[in-house]
Amino acid sequence: MSELRHDPIQKRWVIIASDRGKRPIDFKQENIKKELNFCPFCKGSEAKTPNTISDILGSDNQWRVRTVPNKYPALKIEGELDRKAEGIFDVVNGIGAHEVIIESPNHDDDITLMSYENVQKILIMYRNRLNDLKKDSRFKYILIFKNHGVAAGASLEHPHSQIIATPITPRTVSAELQSAKEHFLLKERCIFCDIINQELKENKRIIYQDNQYVVMMPFASRFPFEMMIAPMPKKHSHDFSESTDADLYNLAVVLKDTLSKLKKGLNDPAYNFLIHTAPNRNSNKRGNLDWNTIERDFHWHIEIIPRLTKKAGFEWGTGFYINPTPPEEAAEYLKKIKL
Amino acid sequence: MSELRHDPIQKRWVIIASDRGKRPIDFKQENIKKELNFCPFCKGSEAKTPNTISDILGSDNQWRVRTVPNKYPALKIEGELDRKAEGIFDVVNGIGAHEVIIESPNHDDDITLMSYENVQKILIMYRNRLNDLKKDSRFKYILIFKNHGVAAGASLEHPHSQIIATPITPRTVSAELQSAKEHFLLKERCIFCDIINQELKENKRIIYQDNQYVVMMPFASRFPFEMMIAPMPKKHSHDFSESTDADLYNLAVVLKDTLSKLKKGLNDPAYNFLIHTAPNRNSNKRGNLDWNTIERDFHWHIEIIPRLTKKAGFEWGTGFYINPTPPEEAAEYLKKIKL
Repeated sequence: MSELRHDPIQKRWVIIASDRGKRPIDFKQENIKKELNFCPFCKGSEAKTPNTISDILGSDNQWRVRTVPNKYPALKIEGELDRKAEGIFDVVNGIGAHEVIIESPNHDDDITLMSYENVQKILIMYRNRLNDLKKDSRFKYILIFKNHGVAAGASLEHPHSQIIATPITPRTVSAELQSAKEHFLLKERCIFCDIINQELKENKRIIYQDNQYVVMMPFASRFPFEMMIAPMPKKHSHDFSESTDADLYNLAVVLKDTLSKLKKGLNDPAYNFLIHTAPNRNSNKRGNLDWNTIERDFHWHIEIIPRLTKKAGFEWGTGFYINPTPPEEAAEYLKKIKL
Repeated sequence: MSELRHDPIQKRWVIIASDRGKRPIDFKQENIKKELNFCPFCKGSEAKTPNTISDILGSDNQWRVRTVPNKYPALKIEGELDRKAEGIFDVVNGIGAHEVIIESPNHDDDITLMSYENVQKILIMYRNRLNDLKKDSRFKYILIFKNHGVAAGASLEHPHSQIIATPITPRTVSAELQSAKEHFLLKERCIFCDIINQELKENKRIIYQDNQYVVMMPFASRFPFEMMIAPMPKKHSHDFSESTDADLYNLAVVLKDTLSKLKKGLNDPAYNFLIHTAPNRNSNKRGNLDWNTIERDFHWHIEIIPRLTKKAGFEWGTGFYINPTPPEEAAEYLKKIKL
């Protein structure tokens, strides 16, 4: 069984996922690639995956997007949460959910190749899974992310995203929640709205804007071509899962077009994207999160992280990043890409 | 000129190193490897590097270890520190030092192939450069690290380490300083000593111990085979730069043997190591660091991070790690490797 372990110095949680089966000796053979001779995510192979949790059909009554449990989950859904001390350390047993969202029945498909309607179906699936998993009060946070390309950690080629529901709130999200709260208590404004307004005014790092969403490169980008998609300040929203189908159609247009620019401008680089949204309110009634102002102080967003540079020990060991490409230059370059 | 930019939400600093010359278009050609037809770090090519800052000679009066300025520095030594606001953001100009420590005159050398005396010379160079750079009150922190292998971010094969002196204290080190301080104020004990004592007693994650140093895998290891080398509790020390030559000979034995086990046990994996030591006291007289108890509350250590797994978006986006190998199993495996 997996467990979550807490580092009392860095105040950092780690999932020790012993069920994922990396015995020490396995690393000796790391370069021998275990290729499957079939793809379990392709249309027709549905029996090779665990049972469908949810699917969205097309007009032909065939599935377009399908969610299944991860066959090698980092966290498992069965059992009671058990929090305990181990001397100076803290441990939580590995309760959670780990699901795979298969984005298309076609192996060679890609968000950049799909119709906006099919991209919208992926986003609707994200929202629906979020809302379903939130009912489980054991889960403090539900994270949706996508790894595209081997350099981004994708182990299967077939286009897919993942959902991990965890019994703790990830540190990066906690830090955002904390900063947002502090800013709000001082100023009664959302820090994300303040930043987006400043960026819109300066217009040096904005890739795209419409009535509803903005795409920009963060001022302190850690990575070349790092991007953020967020609701515009006048559409401020703390929770992705409150998006309507119509919202998600508009977001599908923005997401597909942004990824298409990245693909065209940089030869289809590997990338990750992640949705940062509010934690699960159903689980935090007795937790340390203050919910009073979260609707006004937090602002959901998607982080897109292209994997163009190798991060070295300096970054891992210091939390201090070196980015060789100023976001202004990257933004200017990407804005000019015509689709 | 480079600059340091602050993210007010994550409270994270990033070096935007525009001088390192990654124009957006460069990423399109990322896979075309620019091979040099000579190695600037080899014996005989001394004129191809910037001027020597410091060297350590062998008994034949030839250099064994040599420090030069980095030809493509992330931060530059010339100029006055300038801290300013840019709307909601904070910016510091890119003042700092970025040096390369060439660990041997021989291209194919490696710490695991050197005599203990030569490894000691590298560690003496680390200490001496630390002490020299500390005289500069512009530098809050001096970080020493090594990237071994392409997967760890090494851009040149010739064995070398790097030093970066920064006008801010890196976030990971700040977090450690903060936790150590809190623990000490409550308990009047060093948190690192407490953890090491617990580990010594449990003896499940200890790789090696002698009178002076311990090598162990952290309870909440983020990466398979992650290791920490630290002074034993009875040799508690907050500052690597106070090590004597004799200390550094003993440390050379531990470091070489640990890296040799890693190399033999896992087929020479890529790795990073970093020294976490106390910040520069000369620069923090008016800073926010409290120096009253640092000698007793902080404990220097070396982090060794093998690069056996690809970190995916989940880790970058959440600060929440999935480690597929329990450190107890990794420790058991590595302990058994005979050199």
